[in-house]
Amino acid sequence: MKSNDLKDMLGRTSLTPVKQAKHILLDALRATVRKTESCPLSEALDRIPASDTLAPVDLPAHPRSTMDGFAVRAADTFGASSSMPCYLEIDGDVAMGQMPEGTVTQGKCFRIATGGLLPAGSDAVMMFEHTIPVDEKMIEVVKSVGVGKNLTQRGEDIAQGSLALAKGQQLRPQDLGLLAGLGIAEVEVYAKARVGILSTGDEIVHWAESPPPGKIRDINSICLSGLCTRLGAEVTDYGIVSDSEASFFATVEQAAAENDVVLFSGGSSVGMRDLGERVIEKLGQPGILVHGVALKPGKPIIIGMSNTTAIFGLPGHPVSAMVCFELFVDPAIRCISGISHPEKELRPTVNAILDRNINSAAGRLDLIRVQLQERDNELPLAVPVLGKSGSISTLSRAHGYFFIDEASQGINSNSQIKVHLLS
Amino acid sequence: MKSNDLKDMLGRTSLTPVKQAKHILLDALRATVRKTESCPLSEALDRIPASDTLAPVDLPAHPRSTMDGFAVRAADTFGASSSMPCYLEIDGDVAMGQMPEGTVTQGKCFRIATGGLLPAGSDAVMMFEHTIPVDEKMIEVVKSVGVGKNLTQRGEDIAQGSLALAKGQQLRPQDLGLLAGLGIAEVEVYAKARVGILSTGDEIVHWAESPPPGKIRDINSICLSGLCTRLGAEVTDYGIVSDSEASFFATVEQAAAENDVVLFSGGSSVGMRDLGERVIEKLGQPGILVHGVALKPGKPIIIGMSNTTAIFGLPGHPVSAMVCFELFVDPAIRCISGISHPEKELRPTVNAILDRNINSAAGRLDLIRVQLQERDNELPLAVPVLGKSGSISTLSRAHGYFFIDEASQGINSNSQIKVHLLS
Repeated sequence: MKSNDLKDMLGRTSLTPVKQAKHILLDALRATVRKTESCPLSEALDRIPASDTLAPVDLPAHPRSTMDGFAVRAADTFGASSSMPCYLEIDGDVAMGQMPEGTVTQGKCFRIATGGLLPAGSDAVMMFEHTIPVDEKMIEVVKSVGVGKNLTQRGEDIAQGSLALAKGQQLRPQDLGLLAGLGIAEVEVYAKARVGILSTGDEIVHWAESPPPGKIRDINSICLSGLCTRLGAEVTDYGIVSDSEASFFATVEQAAAENDVVLFSGGSSVGMRDLGERVIEKLGQPGILVHGVALKPGKPIIIGMSNTTAIFGLPGHPVSAMVCFELFVDPAIRCISGISHPEKELRPTVNAILDRNINSAAGRLDLIRVQLQERDNELPLAVPVLGKSGSISTLSRAHGYFFIDEASQGINSNSQIKVHLLS
Repeated sequence: MKSNDLKDMLGRTSLTPVKQAKHILLDALRATVRKTESCPLSEALDRIPASDTLAPVDLPAHPRSTMDGFAVRAADTFGASSSMPCYLEIDGDVAMGQMPEGTVTQGKCFRIATGGLLPAGSDAVMMFEHTIPVDEKMIEVVKSVGVGKNLTQRGEDIAQGSLALAKGQQLRPQDLGLLAGLGIAEVEVYAKARVGILSTGDEIVHWAESPPPGKIRDINSICLSGLCTRLGAEVTDYGIVSDSEASFFATVEQAAAENDVVLFSGGSSVGMRDLGERVIEKLGQPGILVHGVALKPGKPIIIGMSNTTAIFGLPGHPVSAMVCFELFVDPAIRCISGISHPEKELRPTVNAILDRNINSAAGRLDLIRVQLQERDNELPLAVPVLGKSGSISTLSRAHGYFFIDEASQGINSNSQIKVHLLS
């Protein structure tokens, strides 16, 4: 059932709860097939692997010393102590970066440095600190060493055939390090999400222009573009489109054909709201998924799909647009990018104490912007940033936000809240 | 006083505490002058402004309606109710994106949509929902409205001359939105930090090569490069340098001349450690700042400066190298990038419960890698990822890390710990 089939007793379309709207959206996106591509390791930072990676080799490929000292047969040192030392003959040197030649035989040892390969016959490394040189060819050993001590076994870091990296997890620097160590020079990753952005409204001009009287600069495009870029998406800006249905439809149609996600914002007038709805319906199946959510700010969002492209009609007010991005567009882009758990909270959170009472209407999710004031030995104080949803400065001043959920009619001063950080 | 002047009673150089080493490093860096450059707003995401930004204009420039309805003189509606409505004549329309013509006079009103500019004479907007159309030219008003209601005042979002953005704070998408709204098309930002990276060691080959017996693939370069890239730095890879003093010195000297930061890693052998120290000393003043810190893993780090370039000799083991990056290179790069509080914890943290006892030596900061296991209605369980500091897979498996501080000899099972997330 589509959420917009829900009508109340007066025949008005009712608002979809946020959680339900997100489920409808992600269920629709999960049903689509994602493209993959091969990516050189040197460009794979933050990309999402499309398959599990098994280690193709043992790492390390040979046992290696983790200490400076002497490669020994452990049994030769058993019982050695300061009062009862044993003596070993230095029979060779392990050259760095080369396979050692020769074999360590009973009563003998090879000099070895950290990272050197263990020579045949040896099974432990005696630390330099536990030896006393007798002469050029002989050491006194004042401590025993166990088999396997002070070395890394073949495959100890990771064994051939075992799971190195799981699919669907963003590649971090240390993951690239592991792939480099295994010699994996290409990774199969999901294609980057492509996002088309347009602003609508006859009153909007590009931010680089000087607006004539009555017009205002476009704020949403650059803000939404930055949010998409931070998620690793490739953004195309389709500019500012007038309120005429023909030009608006043509641009959205083109953007839908060229992208995985289309964001249009603005059009807060009644006529424009209807226009957004009509354009999504005209683009074909599956059409509108959600129209209006029980959310403040952000209520008038429209979510639809045309083939496999998700289309979002975002409110024109910058704060409302960004809130809708956080709650719906962000998980959608992460889902399309191949992240395993796109619905999982992305932003880090901190606990804080609310500095005043905040009222809310029951049945609606409220998102409240806050500034945080650090305090010694106490949780930070969260001070709501008040202001209209058209005020971009309130978002820029905010350090984060918290939610008042649908069941609540408000939160009292001094309550502990969980603040999602806008870093 | 340089930390390496500290010697113990036996004349050995003692280890510098982590906190002190960081202070020495950041004090030296803060004394250097940072370059700035002009950046177009469209490329300014995540850059660091080099000066405070004051609003050059009022935003919005004119009072605007926040509702669909009628621009009115509030006094005309006083006392209006369902039982005692008042009547207003519709005397004009506010066209979207244009300066309204005409003046609202007593007993009259103009049609206006959300975002429309308030016409002269009006001082409030009557919501559409509180009116009943009488005919084409007349509405019945069933509720009074106060002066200034349902509109945004000139400069209400941000007033001309007030602080829009502070210097030294990374530009977030919403900050770009604010600058766009103010028509600021260029931002003065700090130049990106330039980082030169090289690996040393005769046993190291590039990760894309197939290592001959005895050699291993370079893991640190790609891992360190990814960490720098995520901090917004520009990375130059100087490749793998042999252990010979001449070629090593020549490469480090070139990298120091071309970058703000030089990272070399590897050279875990005794000879190589001395070489790193000699090379930094040879590069001139101020020379070595810190040699060896009370840290595990990461103890053998060397921190120096040549003119204004910070030079880090990192341990060869990947885990040790990354730990040293976290604690020293990361704040250094953020300081050079112009961030106001580079020493502030960058990574988000979560509280967790440790699943076993972990021992530590007093007088040393220990960094313990952990995996987190989510649990219902409880803090997540932190399971230490055990393994040698040469094991890159332990870093890749880790979700984060926690510290055992210098005063502690260990942490007991079931203790609550603060885990820094490696996302």
